[in-house]
Amino acid sequence: MEGKEIKVRNTTLAGGTLSVCSAIVGKNEAQLLEEAEEIFPKKPDLVEWRADFFEQIDHTDAVLRAADRLRKKLGDIPLLFTIRSEKEGGKEIPLDEQEKVALLKKVCETESVDLIDFEVDNKQEDIQELQQKTQAQDVKLVLSFHNFKETPSENEMLSKLEKAKSYQADIGKLAVMPNDMSDVLSLLQITQTAEKNLDIPVITMSMGTDGALSRLIGWKFGSALTFAVGSKSSAPGQIPIEIVRQLEGYLSHEN
Amino acid sequence: MEGKEIKVRNTTLAGGTLSVCSAIVGKNEAQLLEEAEEIFPKKPDLVEWRADFFEQIDHTDAVLRAADRLRKKLGDIPLLFTIRSEKEGGKEIPLDEQEKVALLKKVCETESVDLIDFEVDNKQEDIQELQQKTQAQDVKLVLSFHNFKETPSENEMLSKLEKAKSYQADIGKLAVMPNDMSDVLSLLQITQTAEKNLDIPVITMSMGTDGALSRLIGWKFGSALTFAVGSKSSAPGQIPIEIVRQLEGYLSHEN
Repeated sequence: MEGKEIKVRNTTLAGGTLSVCSAIVGKNEAQLLEEAEEIFPKKPDLVEWRADFFEQIDHTDAVLRAADRLRKKLGDIPLLFTIRSEKEGGKEIPLDEQEKVALLKKVCETESVDLIDFEVDNKQEDIQELQQKTQAQDVKLVLSFHNFKETPSENEMLSKLEKAKSYQADIGKLAVMPNDMSDVLSLLQITQTAEKNLDIPVITMSMGTDGALSRLIGWKFGSALTFAVGSKSSAPGQIPIEIVRQLEGYLSHEN
Repeated sequence: MEGKEIKVRNTTLAGGTLSVCSAIVGKNEAQLLEEAEEIFPKKPDLVEWRADFFEQIDHTDAVLRAADRLRKKLGDIPLLFTIRSEKEGGKEIPLDEQEKVALLKKVCETESVDLIDFEVDNKQEDIQELQQKTQAQDVKLVLSFHNFKETPSENEMLSKLEKAKSYQADIGKLAVMPNDMSDVLSLLQITQTAEKNLDIPVITMSMGTDGALSRLIGWKFGSALTFAVGSKSSAPGQIPIEIVRQLEGYLSHEN
């Protein structure tokens, strides 16, 4: 489908081209800046700040200051701000859902952050509120689904991506755990189906060791972004950014 | 399925573990030995001599002598002897089918060669003759199918592997060209089906740039061997052996 790429700063996210995101997971501003410094020369297309690791997550000022400093460190690399919920693989945080939404809205008002991530199965009102905020602030909304135990049926996975689309998300994301290699094929299969039929870009991955190959080759089947290790791993199965990039030429018609 | 691995010298071929084969394509003995020398330190699990490139293919003595010299160069690395037919992607050779079968039989009688490749769609009598010969000489028989234009239906691909099995081949091989990424998924899908249901190991690959990923990750879905470049490429989409091996640790539970 034409025209479903997303442009954020100088990065274009679209199925069929490799874009790599590295996460930073520092507990405090100093650690975050150190990780950003380590990642920057590796030129990820995107950096995700997994703010659920940030000890001062309940101090809005500290979060906004860290975001601003990160922005300056990252030059023109887009920044994705994520507070991953504990239920979907994140750290426990001292914010309730309302406080989390309030913080995400504040973050959207800065010019530091280019995308935010929120779970597609969160409360409808919260998602709608954030969707309006992101749209107003020209921030991109990623609506995500994670399952660290198994790979749901292909229909269920597709329905999560369709749900993201129905909320007017800019991008739908799916990260699931395989129990065998058939699950990895299912994930690749629905990635391709979504790439063909859904009119927003999708980010998909199969996690763990068996799923790790999806992080290398998922872009060929339509995943618009892969998460790779720049400094520290943020999910099971992530591979160093250099390795992922090195394969691009062998798998690409442009090279 | 248990017990369907094949052991050749110190190499064990089985789905789910990475084994790498590099082809040598020299026109004469000197070139062959040079390629073998270049490949040896890269420690492929298997070396394929694509003898259809050999200018003296119609001189049995020259072939047997080159095989003997290669054997000595390769130490304990198993040698696969292949005269790829022109119809399935090989070079034109001055031997008719009967002469080719006669040469393959001669080669089986040496102790230089550990496996031979023959096309599964060749004449039934020829295949049976070679099957008997390989069995008597403790040489392994690979029965292969190639399509450089397209990827047949999943049923047709499976039927080629079943045909190989029905001839009592030791290994079935399938190399097909994708026209889109769905074709690559089909190839991976039937690889997994064959790994589960067929009681001989299979070697499968999707060729060209879009198929190249199957050469990196096909083993995870049950392909018992991947062809990678040690010295020279012998088919479209092949990737250097170092790159293929480098990924193994990231995709493997043993690492």
